[in-house]
Amino acid sequence: MSEALQDAGQEIALSPTPAEEFQRLSRVQQRELFFRLPETVQEDLVADMDAEGLRAFVRRLDPDEATDVLGFADRETREVVLRRLDEDRREKIEFLLEFSPESAAGHMHLDYVTVGSQRPISEVARRVRRHEDRTDRFPTIFVTDGDELVGELPGGTLALSDDEDILDHVIEIPAVRYDSPDTDVVDVFRSNPERSVAVLDDDGSILGVIYAGDLLSVIEEAAGETLYEFTGVQEEESVLDGPLVKIRSRYKWLVINLGTAFLAAAVVGLFEETIAAFTLLAVYMPVVAGMGGNAGTQSMAVTVRGIALGQVSLPTGGRAILNEVVAGAANGAITGTLVAVIAAVFNQSPLLGLVLGVSMVLNLVIAGFFGTLIPLVLSRLGEDPATSATIFITTATDVLGFLVFLGMARAVLVG
Amino acid sequence: MSEALQDAGQEIALSPTPAEEFQRLSRVQQRELFFRLPETVQEDLVADMDAEGLRAFVRRLDPDEATDVLGFADRETREVVLRRLDEDRREKIEFLLEFSPESAAGHMHLDYVTVGSQRPISEVARRVRRHEDRTDRFPTIFVTDGDELVGELPGGTLALSDDEDILDHVIEIPAVRYDSPDTDVVDVFRSNPERSVAVLDDDGSILGVIYAGDLLSVIEEAAGETLYEFTGVQEEESVLDGPLVKIRSRYKWLVINLGTAFLAAAVVGLFEETIAAFTLLAVYMPVVAGMGGNAGTQSMAVTVRGIALGQVSLPTGGRAILNEVVAGAANGAITGTLVAVIAAVFNQSPLLGLVLGVSMVLNLVIAGFFGTLIPLVLSRLGEDPATSATIFITTATDVLGFLVFLGMARAVLVG
Repeated sequence: MSEALQDAGQEIALSPTPAEEFQRLSRVQQRELFFRLPETVQEDLVADMDAEGLRAFVRRLDPDEATDVLGFADRETREVVLRRLDEDRREKIEFLLEFSPESAAGHMHLDYVTVGSQRPISEVARRVRRHEDRTDRFPTIFVTDGDELVGELPGGTLALSDDEDILDHVIEIPAVRYDSPDTDVVDVFRSNPERSVAVLDDDGSILGVIYAGDLLSVIEEAAGETLYEFTGVQEEESVLDGPLVKIRSRYKWLVINLGTAFLAAAVVGLFEETIAAFTLLAVYMPVVAGMGGNAGTQSMAVTVRGIALGQVSLPTGGRAILNEVVAGAANGAITGTLVAVIAAVFNQSPLLGLVLGVSMVLNLVIAGFFGTLIPLVLSRLGEDPATSATIFITTATDVLGFLVFLGMARAVLVG
Repeated sequence: MSEALQDAGQEIALSPTPAEEFQRLSRVQQRELFFRLPETVQEDLVADMDAEGLRAFVRRLDPDEATDVLGFADRETREVVLRRLDEDRREKIEFLLEFSPESAAGHMHLDYVTVGSQRPISEVARRVRRHEDRTDRFPTIFVTDGDELVGELPGGTLALSDDEDILDHVIEIPAVRYDSPDTDVVDVFRSNPERSVAVLDDDGSILGVIYAGDLLSVIEEAAGETLYEFTGVQEEESVLDGPLVKIRSRYKWLVINLGTAFLAAAVVGLFEETIAAFTLLAVYMPVVAGMGGNAGTQSMAVTVRGIALGQVSLPTGGRAILNEVVAGAANGAITGTLVAVIAAVFNQSPLLGLVLGVSMVLNLVIAGFFGTLIPLVLSRLGEDPATSATIFITTATDVLGFLVFLGMARAVLVG
C-alpha cells in the first residue's frame, strides 16, 4: 500500500466523518483501501455512509466482497441498498448474508454450475457459457446425481463429444459443511492440495465453492494474531485505533500481569533482610528474572508451533519436556558461567558468583520444564496454548527463580 | 495428525536409523508424515535412506513434492534415483531441481500447456487432452504470441468452435519472475485474488504455474516463525529436535539478552546505597520491570501487524506513536494507582506509593514510545521488525524504567 493510501487510511480511522474522507478517493483506491482497513474502522466507515454512497461502492464489488461490506450496515440501510441493486446481484448477496462470515459459507462464492451426471456434454458447455457471459468468470462444474454431489468436471472435458459419458471424466472434490469453522477449511486444503472445496448444506446439496486463495486472508490474520495473543492485545485492535480503544484493549492484561508481578515481589519480600545485608543481590535480580523469562518463552514458542503442526501433544510430550530440561540445564551452565565469572571478578565475591551460576542452571531448567508442560496442558484442556501460557510461565520462572536465587544466597552468603 | 503418527514422528526424529522406522509405515502414512516433519528431520531421514528406498517413496509423489524430497539427497544418490524413474517424471524433477526451494520457481508446478494465439481451438483441446491423459490433471492454458505470454484461456472456451478467435477469450494472468522470493508471490495473490500466477524466465518465457493453494504452507510457516523470531529461536528448530540442536539454536540469543540484563543491572548498581537504605525498593523492582516490558511488547505487536498489513510506516507513523504514548500514560495511571494504593496501605509508605505510581506512568509512556518507534525504524532499515525489536524495547524499558523509579526514590525517599 502506498504512503498516500496509508495516510488516507489514518485519516479515515481517526475522522469523525470517515465517509467523507473515503468518498474523496477514486473507485480503485476505495476498493484497495477498504479491505486493508482494520475491522473496527470498516464498521465505523460503513455506519457513516448513506445508502446511496454504499450502493455506489458495492455495485462494482464481487458478491462475496459486497456481502462483507453490507454485513457491517444496519438492517434498514442494507435493505435500501439491496433494493437498488440489480436482481441477480441482490439475490446472491441476500443469500450470502445468511451465513456467518467466519464459517465455510462466509468464504464461499457462487461461481459454479451444477449438471446432472446423465446430461449431455453440450448442455454443460451451454451452462458454462451462460455463466461466463453473466459474470465474466469461469465456473466450477459440479456433477450431481439427484441432489447429491458426485464430483467436479474439469473444464477441459467440455471439448468432449456428446457421445461420451460425463461420469467417466468426473474427478473427486473435497467438501465441507456450510457451518464448518474457517480453520477447518484450511485443514482440508492442507491435506488435499486441490484447487477448490465444495460447500454443502445440511442435506448435502451444494451451496457454493471455495478456492484456496479465498483463505489466504484467514491464514494471514491468524499469523498476526499469534503475537497479539502472546502479548494480551485484543484481536480487533489495530495500529490505526485511537488511544481509547488501545487502553480498553490492553489494560486487563496489564492488571493480570500486575498480579503475577506482585507474586514475584512477595517472594522477594521474604528475603528483605537478606537483601538489606547484601545489597548486591538486588543488582543481580534483573539478570535472574530476565534470563528465566526469556528461556521459558523460547521453550513455549517451540512447543506452540509443534502443537500447531500436530507434531506433539500431552500424551506424546514426555520426551519433548525431557529434551527442553536438558537443553535448559546446558544453556544455564553456559550463561551461568559467564555471570559467575563476572560477579567473581567485578564484585570480588566468588561465593556470589557460585550462587548466581547455580541459580541460572536451576532457573533455566525450571523455564524448560514449565515452558513445555504448560502449553501442552492448556492445549489438552482446549485452551489456546499461546495466549494464557506466558502468564503461567513467567510466574513460574519469576517466583521459583527468585526463591532459588535469594534462598541460596541467604544460606550461603548471609547465614 | 493422529497420536500414533506423532509417536512415529518422534521415533524417526530421535532414531539413529530413521529410514528403518519410516519404512515400517504404509505408503499413505509415509506421505502424510514426511511433509509434516521438521526440515532438519526430513534431511536426516533422506540421508539415511538408500537409493531404492528413496525411489520407492518418490515414484508416487507429484513432481514438485518429489523435487522437495530429492533436494535433501546427495548428488550421487539423487542421480541413481532419477535414472530409475520413468523419463517424463525424471525430466520434470531435473528441471524443478534447478531452482531455489524458497523462490517462486520452488513452488511452481508444470501442469500447463502453451498455445500460440493464432492456433485453432481444436489444437488447444487436443493438447489439453494429451496433458490430462499423461498426468491426470487439467492444465492451465497459457496463450503466447511468439515467446511472450499474452494471458490465460479459461477451460470453458474449449467448447468454442474453430471459427472463433482465441484472443477474444483470453483473460489476464499475473506473472512473477522465477527468482522472486516466495513472500513476493504471496503479495501478488493478495492484491489479485486470481486463482493462478505464471512463473516467467528472464526472457519472459513461461517456466511454470503457481496456484494459491501452493502457498498455504509458506504463509503457515511464516505464522509459526513470528513467535520464533520474537523469542530468538532459530527458524529450523522443532519440538522434535534433541537437546544439542536446541542448545545451539538458542544460546546466542540468551547471551545477547544477558548483555542487556547486565545493562539493567548496572543501572540498579548506581543506586546500591539507596536500596541499602530502603530495601523495599528491591521488592518492587520486579513490578516496575515486568510492567514496562509487557506494555512495550503490546505496542510492538500492534505495530508489527500494522507494518505487515501495510497500514503504517515510519513516514506515516507519527500519529501511531502519539496514540501509543497517550494510551501508555492512561494504562500507567490505571496500574500505577493500583500499585500506589497497595504500597501505601501494606507498606504504610504513601511516599513510596507516590514514587511507584509516577514511575509506572512514565515507564508505560517509555514503553509506548519505544514499542512503536523501534519496529518502524527497523522496518525502514530493511530489518525484520519482530526479531530484533524486543531486545531494544526491553533494554529501553528496563534501563529507563529503573532509572526513573530508583532515581525518583533517591530524591524523594532517601534524600
